Order: sequence, then C-alpha cells, then structure tokens
Amino acid sequence: MKFTCQKTELVQALQIVSKAAASKPQMPVLSGIYLKAEQNQLELQATDYEIGIICHIEAEVEEAGTIVLSSRYFQEVTRSLPGETVSFDYDAAAQITRITSASANFQLMNMPANEFPTITQLTGTLSFTIKDNILKDLIKKTAFACSTDEARPVFTGCLLEVGESAVTMVATNTHRLAFKKENLDNLNGSIKIIIPARILSELQRIMVSEIPEEVKIICTYNQISFAFDNLYLTSRLIEGQFPDYHRVIPTDFKTRVTLETAAFLAAVDRVSLIARAGEYNVIRLEFGAGQVHIFSNNPEIGQAEENVPAVIDGPDVNIAFNAKYVTDVLKTITSEQFYFSLNQTLNPAAIREMDNELFIYIVTPVRTAH
Amino acid sequence: MKFTCQKTELVQALQIVSKAAASKPQMPVLSGIYLKAEQNQLELQATDYEIGIICHIEAEVEEAGTIVLSSRYFQEVTRSLPGETVSFDYDAAAQITRITSASANFQLMNMPANEFPTITQLTGTLSFTIKDNILKDLIKKTAFACSTDEARPVFTGCLLEVGESAVTMVATNTHRLAFKKENLDNLNGSIKIIIPARILSELQRIMVSEIPEEVKIICTYNQISFAFDNLYLTSRLIEGQFPDYHRVIPTDFKTRVTLETAAFLAAVDRVSLIARAGEYNVIRLEFGAGQVHIFSNNPEIGQAEENVPAVIDGPDVNIAFNAKYVTDVLKTITSEQFYFSLNQTLNPAAIREMDNELFIYIVTPVRTAH
Repeated sequence: MKFTCQKTELVQALQIVSKAAASKPQMPVLSGIYLKAEQNQLELQATDYEIGIICHIEAEVEEAGTIVLSSRYFQEVTRSLPGETVSFDYDAAAQITRITSASANFQLMNMPANEFPTITQLTGTLSFTIKDNILKDLIKKTAFACSTDEARPVFTGCLLEVGESAVTMVATNTHRLAFKKENLDNLNGSIKIIIPARILSELQRIMVSEIPEEVKIICTYNQISFAFDNLYLTSRLIEGQFPDYHRVIPTDFKTRVTLETAAFLAAVDRVSLIARAGEYNVIRLEFGAGQVHIFSNNPEIGQAEENVPAVIDGPDVNIAFNAKYVTDVLKTITSEQFYFSLNQTLNPAAIREMDNELFIYIVTPVRTAH
Repeated sequence: MKFTCQKTELVQALQIVSKAAASKPQMPVLSGIYLKAEQNQLELQATDYEIGIICHIEAEVEEAGTIVLSSRYFQEVTRSLPGETVSFDYDAAAQITRITSASANFQLMNMPANEFPTITQLTGTLSFTIKDNILKDLIKKTAFACSTDEARPVFTGCLLEVGESAVTMVATNTHRLAFKKENLDNLNGSIKIIIPARILSELQRIMVSEIPEEVKIICTYNQISFAFDNLYLTSRLIEGQFPDYHRVIPTDFKTRVTLETAAFLAAVDRVSLIARAGEYNVIRLEFGAGQVHIFSNNPEIGQAEENVPAVIDGPDVNIAFNAKYVTDVLKTITSEQFYFSLNQTLNPAAIREMDNELFIYIVTPVRTAH
C-alpha cells in the first residue's frame, strides 16, 4: 500500500474516527485505526464493537491496500507532521508503515489488518433522512437528561420514536425527563428504539456544517447508522423497555411562571455554589409577589439567596430542586424567556421554551425539611 | 468590619493570594484567606507556613476589622458575583460575613481570625532591587531544571548568589544544570541561598507588568521576600549545601554546533513522540556532514528520524539524551540560533544562546547500546 494525502484532512478524519477506537480493547486490534487505500480515496475505520465510525478523504493512491495502525501513536505522529502532505508506504515484510512529511520520517509498527472487524454498511427496513441541524437540536435538547448508571441500561440512551409524521426523542434518568418532537413529512414506517447517548454525543460534536445537510438514518431492530458528508457512524441499540413517558408528563399545571432565561440561569448558578457542596445540590425556589426567591444553605459553608423578577399566573408555590436538573435544561434553551409550570411542592414541574410546543422538560422536586 | 471594593480587583487579588493557601492545612485556618480592612485599603493574606502572599487593593472602608474566609468558597463566590462592586459586612455574633453584589446575597461562615498566623514583613541584612523583567528571565532560564524529588531538597530549589556586581541563579537535578548571571551595579553585600522553585514559579506567573518595575528583595539566613506593585511574597529558604556548580561546567568543548532554534526544537519534539513511550525518553543525535540526524526507536511502536542542517566546527559526534532535557531548555531560548557544544559521546554537553555569555545549560548524555 502506498498513498499520499493532505495532512489537515487526515488530522480531522483521525480526530473523528478515533472516538470509536477502544480504550480498553477486547482484542488489541480494536485499539487501532483501519486504513484502506483504493481509487484515489482513503477510508479510515474504527470500532469497539459498540459503535463504529468510517470517514473517507481524498488520497493519491499509488498502490491499493489495507493496514491497521495504533490509534494513539498514529494520531500523535500525524498531528506533529511538518508538511502539507503526508505519504504512507507499507512494508509488508517488516510489518511497518513508513510515514513521510517534509523533513520528518516515521516508521510505525502495524497491527494485523485481517483481524480487524471491518464495519459493514447497514441495510434496514426503516430509513429516512433528516436535516443535521434538526437532528442536532433533538439530541441537544434531550441527551443531557440521560443517566450514566450502566446498571440500568435503558436510561443511558435516548428513545427515538419515528411515527407517521413526526420524530420524537425522549431521555430520562427517572428524576427528570426531556421530550422533543420534530414534524417531518418524509417518513415511511414507524419504529421505537433506544440509542446509546454515547453515539448521539459523538454525532452532536461532529455535525458542524454551516449549511444544513441531509443525514441518512437506517434502523434495524438492534442497530442504527447515520450517514452524511464523508462520514458513516453506526451503533448498537440498547435492548429493553423504555418507560411510558406519556404517564410522566402532567397534563395540566395550576401555576405558570414566565422568567427571563439568562437572568434566572445566572442566579441559580450562583446560588447553587453553596448547594453544590452538599450531597443533593438542593436549591429552594419561592414563587410569589412578582418574583422568585432562590435560596440554598449549607451549615458548614454559609448560604446564598437571590431574587429574580417573575410573571406568576396562579397560586404561589414553594418548591426545591437539584440545582443541576434546572441549570442543565436552561443551558439548552434559546428563547429569551421560558415557562416554569408548577402544581404543588411535591409534584413534578415542567420547563418549556417560549413559542415551542414541541419541547417539554419534566423535573421531580426534592423533599426538604422546610 | 464593613467595606466595599471593586469585583475585578478582588478576583485578581484572590487568584494571586490563594496560591499560598494550604490545600492540606496543618490547621484549618491555613486554608483560609485573611482579610484586613482599614484606611481605605483591603489587605489579603494567605500562607501555608512555607510561602506567604500579601496583596493590597483599594476599598471603601466603613468599619475596620479582620476576618478569615475559606479560600475555595470565597473565590468561587467572588468570581460568580454579578455586580461591579462587592460589599462585605461581618456579623461578629453569628460568625458570618454577608457578601452583596447587585442582586446576589451570600453569607459565608468565618474562620477564627485571631488564629491566623499573619505574615510579618521581613527585615534583613541584605536587600537589593532588581527589575522584574530581569528577575523573570533569571527564573525562566533556570527554575525548570530543578528536581521535583522532595527526598533531596537542595535540588528542588534555585541557588541565588549575590556577589559584588552580579546576581547568579543556578538549578540542577544532577542530570542537567542551568546557569544564568545578570550584572547589576546596586548590590551591597553578598549571599548564597537556595530558594524553593515553588515561590519562583509563583513570582514568574504574577510578574506580568508591561513596563519593567522594581522588585525589592530582602534576604535573611532562612527567609526571602519579594515586594513589588501591591504585592508582597515571602518564602522559607531550603537548608543544605548546593553542589559546586563550577566543577560541573566544562571549560572547553572540541565540537561546537550552530543550529536554528525553532527547527531543531520542532524536530526533536517530533522524534521524541516515539522515545516518550520508553522509560528513558532517549533520542540519539548524530552530528556530521553539515547536519544533525535525530533518531529514536521503540521496538513496540516504531521509529522516527529527521535531519536538520547544522554548522559543525570540530569532530563529528554521536550522542544520546533524554529528549525532555533538550526540549525544556530550547523552549526558554529566544535567540534564532543557538550553540550545542560537545566533547565525546559520554561527556556532558552545553547549550548556549547566541550572543549571550551569561547563560549556560549543561546536560549529561545517556549511555545507549549503539
């Protein structure tokens, strides 16, 4: 195998693909990057069996072939190269690849390419396309609400529901739930699957195009793939029954509060400086008299309080939350104002964006002594 | 105690002073920041008995007094404040301090101010002033060469020698040595002390003035202080005998190589990507035929090599070094070219700046199988 490509393109491709390389590999070759050069194209692959990423870049291929290089050293070496282009030359007898760029010459040991479990493109019964900015928003507004507790796998992923005319994404860790819907008209078939948060956060990180692009999604009963630009991502799905989220979302609220997003977020962030040191990160909110009084205390550190103006429709409410469950969602809200909807002190509350019926966030309050 | 000050000034002062607060305090109050308000001035102090820092900022003092607040929470709270000014009000009965800034209200628990070991200004037999840019350069060119091994304390600090007309700073970890001299004409007395690298790196970090300022240094047999701007730093000295560095610096070299600083540093950095994975981080240098061939290998990863043009006066030399001992010093060199002076394969080598006789760096080679 022998080829030349652009250094910056290779560095970018490696940054993306390497996220799928295993850090604690079941077999050594899974910590490597698989390279295939043919027909003026270089294909890079990495997989840890859970997720897989393929990226294609242009290359001047003199001799086709496949190799596997250690993800870590391949990345470090590539980033350090001084030239604009990089040339690769595989020496099959010595099992090494020579990497040359301007004055720099490296030789990296190869891993056995025939042992690498190359990713096969998914073919499934359900496929649809979605604009990347819409997909990104679905992820951004829900994936943060997932659990990180591997003991209960269904909560470590987002539920994706494809219906006749809409796509819905839902995530919950049982203490909070985020729901986001998008109306789409090109759907043919329905599905209900749980996608690991890990592949969604990789997608979110990678989708950086300035002009909206189409992402092609293919689902099977146990796998999903995303194809766009020069990239192909695939992931196993999470098995299990996602809870019936309709039962979790209250149908009506007695009190609806309108708040300035930035001012309220900044105040909660400040007040929670004191709460954070405690075990449950509890802030108390007292809605009444045209304002919300935000309060936290910790007997060993001190206390914090702040008032933020609020438009309150309905009875006054005193309620307490884990501060992180409030700030996490506010960081995803782009409208200048938002609604905080409440019932009683111990009932779940809702956070909604202004003028957006397609998003809702439910948070369970914390019981406090006061 | 009651006073008001500017938020940004307080944040900056806290950033500096807090570096002297103890992270693992011998007694709890040493993890705090001592505040003294009087005569339109706020004094901040922190010390862990080894080093101490005092900073003064302007304040509108309504009621003089002293308090001690937890360094961690005081910093976090201050940084988060929304207003331009901050007001402090100490409630002696409750042992709390109220902190108010725009809409934000905090109450922080106090530590007992009478238990705080306030820093007393040093008076010593030897004192002199030095421009901060000169002091910074003395530190930058030597302190990196110190050891971090606390088992041999003398190597964890820089030797400061004040003579009749020059100040010299020297650091070594026994494998390398950095020497820097500055000619000064305002010295009255001589001294030879070992200053902990920690206070020197704090100084280097703090000295950010654009216009050179005078730093007043006072030395006693076991302490040193640095005063400039609104700051006062003090540190214990390291006891013990610093090795006779004159014996370590070779008087002549058979080969003198002139190299481009940036090109050689970049090449050594790249080649050492492979060396770094090994235990001793070894790079080999072959000086000859108008170039230096830089080489490293690791049987498990691969190898790297690069040639850099060199002007070689004297016999060819093949030699090996710990790559870090070469790159560390090159990062402090500002001249476009530098001299690498060598004798035989196993003799110490020297690195010097172009046109600067006042700096020399000695590095011991590594024995290799080749």
